[in-house]
Amino acid sequence: MSDPSHHYLALSGGVGGAKLCLGLARLLADRLSLIVNTGDDFEHLGLYVSPDLDTALYTLAGLVNPVTGWGRSGETWTFMAALEGLGGPGWFKLGDGDLATHVLRTERLKGGATLTAVCAELARRFSISARILPMCDERLRTLVETEIGTLAFQDYFVREQCRPRLRQIRFEGAAESKPTAEVLEVLADPLLAGIIICPSNPFLSVDPILAVPGLRGALRAARVPIVAVSPIIAGQAVKGPAAKIMAELGIAADSRSIARYYAGLVDGFIIDVADSGLAADMPLPVKVTKTLMATLDDKIALARTCLAFCAELGAGAGPMLVRTQGQRHDAG
Amino acid sequence: MSDPSHHYLALSGGVGGAKLCLGLARLLADRLSLIVNTGDDFEHLGLYVSPDLDTALYTLAGLVNPVTGWGRSGETWTFMAALEGLGGPGWFKLGDGDLATHVLRTERLKGGATLTAVCAELARRFSISARILPMCDERLRTLVETEIGTLAFQDYFVREQCRPRLRQIRFEGAAESKPTAEVLEVLADPLLAGIIICPSNPFLSVDPILAVPGLRGALRAARVPIVAVSPIIAGQAVKGPAAKIMAELGIAADSRSIARYYAGLVDGFIIDVADSGLAADMPLPVKVTKTLMATLDDKIALARTCLAFCAELGAGAGPMLVRTQGQRHDAG
Repeated sequence: MSDPSHHYLALSGGVGGAKLCLGLARLLADRLSLIVNTGDDFEHLGLYVSPDLDTALYTLAGLVNPVTGWGRSGETWTFMAALEGLGGPGWFKLGDGDLATHVLRTERLKGGATLTAVCAELARRFSISARILPMCDERLRTLVETEIGTLAFQDYFVREQCRPRLRQIRFEGAAESKPTAEVLEVLADPLLAGIIICPSNPFLSVDPILAVPGLRGALRAARVPIVAVSPIIAGQAVKGPAAKIMAELGIAADSRSIARYYAGLVDGFIIDVADSGLAADMPLPVKVTKTLMATLDDKIALARTCLAFCAELGAGAGPMLVRTQGQRHDAG
Repeated sequence: MSDPSHHYLALSGGVGGAKLCLGLARLLADRLSLIVNTGDDFEHLGLYVSPDLDTALYTLAGLVNPVTGWGRSGETWTFMAALEGLGGPGWFKLGDGDLATHVLRTERLKGGATLTAVCAELARRFSISARILPMCDERLRTLVETEIGTLAFQDYFVREQCRPRLRQIRFEGAAESKPTAEVLEVLADPLLAGIIICPSNPFLSVDPILAVPGLRGALRAARVPIVAVSPIIAGQAVKGPAAKIMAELGIAADSRSIARYYAGLVDGFIIDVADSGLAADMPLPVKVTKTLMATLDDKIALARTCLAFCAELGAGAGPMLVRTQGQRHDAG
């Protein structure tokens, strides 16, 4: 199906994206790289917390809490109980084992390491074969303009549980950010054969990545098929506030809207069988499959579909490229 | 025995001192103030750790681990396991609940609070009636010159388990430190009736307190009896390296040496019944009692002896003062 020498890149947010990343990692091992959203990162109690990177790390390490999809399995909560006993904030849950990640990362960052370097160290310690890259090393922060004012992402997402009506999403610090050398290295890899945009929230998880100046252009310039998986199934987000946000932004909450949103960037779009009725009226090539990932087999099956779709699009006509033996030449 | 309006001050290091502080606290409640050694404080993994303050807090809050005498009872160790899994340092044990104290204190200090203010906040949260005061708000650090070089206190005490032969003890930053307003307020309290130096290590726990410029003089200037409890029983330290250190410094490891060390500062000295043979040849008034504190009753009994000794010395002749109704006048 996919050439065993080919490399792939996935763009991911948190829980939903990480599920597909796990499927991809099982197929590709060290031939997989991830660019992960860090727009949700924040300083909490003096600790640098990076929710999506941690979800990617714990998921690919096989350590993730299978019930929540984030945090560590077998976690204990003694710290939180003691913290709340001391009048500390209880709205953001830091598990005892999870704290080790935050404490170590915070110390490394203070010591001058880049987020990319710290993430690589953690991935190595977790024996993860895939390369997990933050979207940038600068502080690009997702801010949400809501009916109750501007909120930092975690305040909106966790503390306010996405309740306030959303008006606009901004990416503070975007102008000062840039793609890392490591991200550009992945995109320049002659063995790169496809880019997969995971079924993450396009507005809150993928847009921050694309807000890094030059990154969107670099993705296109890699001249490999870009395939996105819809995070919407039958008008509902599998997880998170995507459908609610779309309604608040005046966008119809369906896969077609997502396809339109990604038009100009992606070459192929994967939707769930529940949305097969929408396949005919899409602005780009579509693959219909089961996108709900309940089991590891589901994750691997969807990953396989993504890779096959990349191969198919890469071999076809249009602006895409056929690659042989690491060389590039225009197809058609 | 002791006037129910009288206030007392205790100077304390870690575990041994905290035991007597608990006895004193049971008798005195909010009429007790502590000055606690902070020469052992250090930054670990970016967290400000204050071992003796924490031992005082946990002990007086009734939360201390009864087996170790430090740390919290019912503690879990998920953080340490995760930290070591990530290659982090395992030599200093941070319990999950204990971490809440360090994280909160570190954040408050970064926000500009003094160590004294943070300690007061923690004591309030722990519902502690006694006033727990760090010896100073500046960073005065105990350094140990050993046969293997200069070691920070925790490196010597915890990591190296006091094994290296000790040559000298230094207090880095002492010149830049000063007694806090809160400590001076306690010493100026007209109801203060006595000062107790707990059975802590004179060299490693009490000397750092006395190294704060002006503090020794302020203790004397309070003109109340100062009573010390020997940390040595029958040539042995109940806990910690006091006897080993004394041998390495060429001082006979017995209560008489401790009495000589404290001469000029203290007015009365309390030794254990096991050392009653030394009572005759002491440079200052001595009280012989059971100083080993295995049970809460032992702690309260020793505390009672300390208060009675203060009352006795305060009513006697010499440089001491008799105080009535908060007024001071020279006795004899």
